[in-house]
Amino acid sequence: MKLNRVLIYGMGLMGGSLSLAIRELDPKAEIIAVVRSEKSKESIQKKKLADLVYTLAETKNVNWNGYDFVVFSTPVASLLEIIPSLPKSGETIFIDLGSTKQTIIDAVDLHFGDKEHNYISTHPICGSEQAGPEASIPNLYQDKLCILTKPKRGSEKTLELVKQFWENIGSWTINMDAKSHDETLAYVSHLPHVVSTILVNVAGNNKTTMEQVSSIAKPITGGGFRDMSRIAGSNAEMWTSIFKENQYFLQNSIDEFIKQLTEFRNLLDGNSELDDSKIHSIWDLALKQKETIQKTK
Amino acid sequence: MKLNRVLIYGMGLMGGSLSLAIRELDPKAEIIAVVRSEKSKESIQKKKLADLVYTLAETKNVNWNGYDFVVFSTPVASLLEIIPSLPKSGETIFIDLGSTKQTIIDAVDLHFGDKEHNYISTHPICGSEQAGPEASIPNLYQDKLCILTKPKRGSEKTLELVKQFWENIGSWTINMDAKSHDETLAYVSHLPHVVSTILVNVAGNNKTTMEQVSSIAKPITGGGFRDMSRIAGSNAEMWTSIFKENQYFLQNSIDEFIKQLTEFRNLLDGNSELDDSKIHSIWDLALKQKETIQKTK
Repeated sequence: MKLNRVLIYGMGLMGGSLSLAIRELDPKAEIIAVVRSEKSKESIQKKKLADLVYTLAETKNVNWNGYDFVVFSTPVASLLEIIPSLPKSGETIFIDLGSTKQTIIDAVDLHFGDKEHNYISTHPICGSEQAGPEASIPNLYQDKLCILTKPKRGSEKTLELVKQFWENIGSWTINMDAKSHDETLAYVSHLPHVVSTILVNVAGNNKTTMEQVSSIAKPITGGGFRDMSRIAGSNAEMWTSIFKENQYFLQNSIDEFIKQLTEFRNLLDGNSELDDSKIHSIWDLALKQKETIQKTK
Repeated sequence: MKLNRVLIYGMGLMGGSLSLAIRELDPKAEIIAVVRSEKSKESIQKKKLADLVYTLAETKNVNWNGYDFVVFSTPVASLLEIIPSLPKSGETIFIDLGSTKQTIIDAVDLHFGDKEHNYISTHPICGSEQAGPEASIPNLYQDKLCILTKPKRGSEKTLELVKQFWENIGSWTINMDAKSHDETLAYVSHLPHVVSTILVNVAGNNKTTMEQVSSIAKPITGGGFRDMSRIAGSNAEMWTSIFKENQYFLQNSIDEFIKQLTEFRNLLDGNSELDDSKIHSIWDLALKQKETIQKTK
């Protein structure tokens, strides 16, 4: 893939880190950034994350075909407004870093119709509680998964180039259709964020717990609560946008969670002859599935 | 507190680590262990975690008053069977490391009646996914919280000695009545373990997720899922015992969790005009409460 002129449209932690990774790959790449706020522009200039940086206000009509490679690193909702304005011809390769895929793929398919094109949707899995370009690091994508989703008429050759690009910066890749992506991510990413957040609010809502918490200077929680709450409440704006795009699968995953939790709850009937074997089988299943999902065995 | 002769009744990770900590505190302490299995006995002998070690089968009537300090590190259910046989006079100080308190305190209060005694219930918060005496480490209790629960007629002087003991091995202490302990721990420890386990099983039950998982050699999950599933399915026997002792508060905490999760779920009505402000306020609350609970601000 040619990287002579690269446009990173939206530059927070992910766009900024991608810029650093591209520079390591090709030190001659000219990187142009477009951002929403003056504050971001200043951070990017200070950290030298791009050769040129413009705010949206300074950007009227982008000449998309003036770039070899355009990376959209904006919230999905903004991206959906841009897609209908993309050129239907030219050599520019377009990718996005969107956390959900179906609405993006639908918009791309609709816009390009039957015409073959160079837009490939991608999703590098490398969340962080940190945000903003100032948190950028060159190895954010090292040894991480990047999911590739090809629109109906996206070129196979472009898919291959985009795959190579991600592998060149140290990620490993997998192809997934939009539905499989959004459904899988609901279970392994979106639901965990919801559950972590609710868990903190449930503890926070218990009077006794909060009285005990406030009675000493040190935390009363151990490693379990600390790990389970690490992602709670992080990045409200980003997550609201993700939930909006993935309501159907997230709702399904929540319904299944409530179902299984209710079944567990109903084992606790106040009887000291509680059915050990049922709890053991829930626990054993989790241990086995955790190993399968995380590939630790 | 005198530590010339110490009995650690039940020696897994916690009892074994306590033995190592006591040896650092008082190298002359003679430590005797009682364990259930031959396998534990061998591990303890191999790691030299006690001067003498007996299996339950080799132990008939324990002469409790022959020790300065007796530490019960057995499941609560076994402890409840031992308490009625404890001597009602003598200088021996008794503690346990039980994860729930109400049933223990009730049994102690019932056994000793109006007689002042030297039994103090304690709960060091230092969980680990590891178990068994072979995992013992001398600094398990360093910089950890130990909760102290005094039975009705437990001696104030003994409470002070027990408090000093824990602080001498590096823990910080807090006094909590049994009800506050069990209720608080339901929210900051027991519920998180349930939620982590169910979360893994919900992902494991989704066909699409498991198809994607099995399609590549690397994990498709990021740090969020990894942290949220760390404690899933661990130590089934111990947790079943804890749930049994704390059914009432655990059930309350699950009910509140389901309530808040259902409220969140109902915000997702398939409408792209999803109420951002409600999600933001749930997220902001979690962020604030997380800081309060973990004392990070």
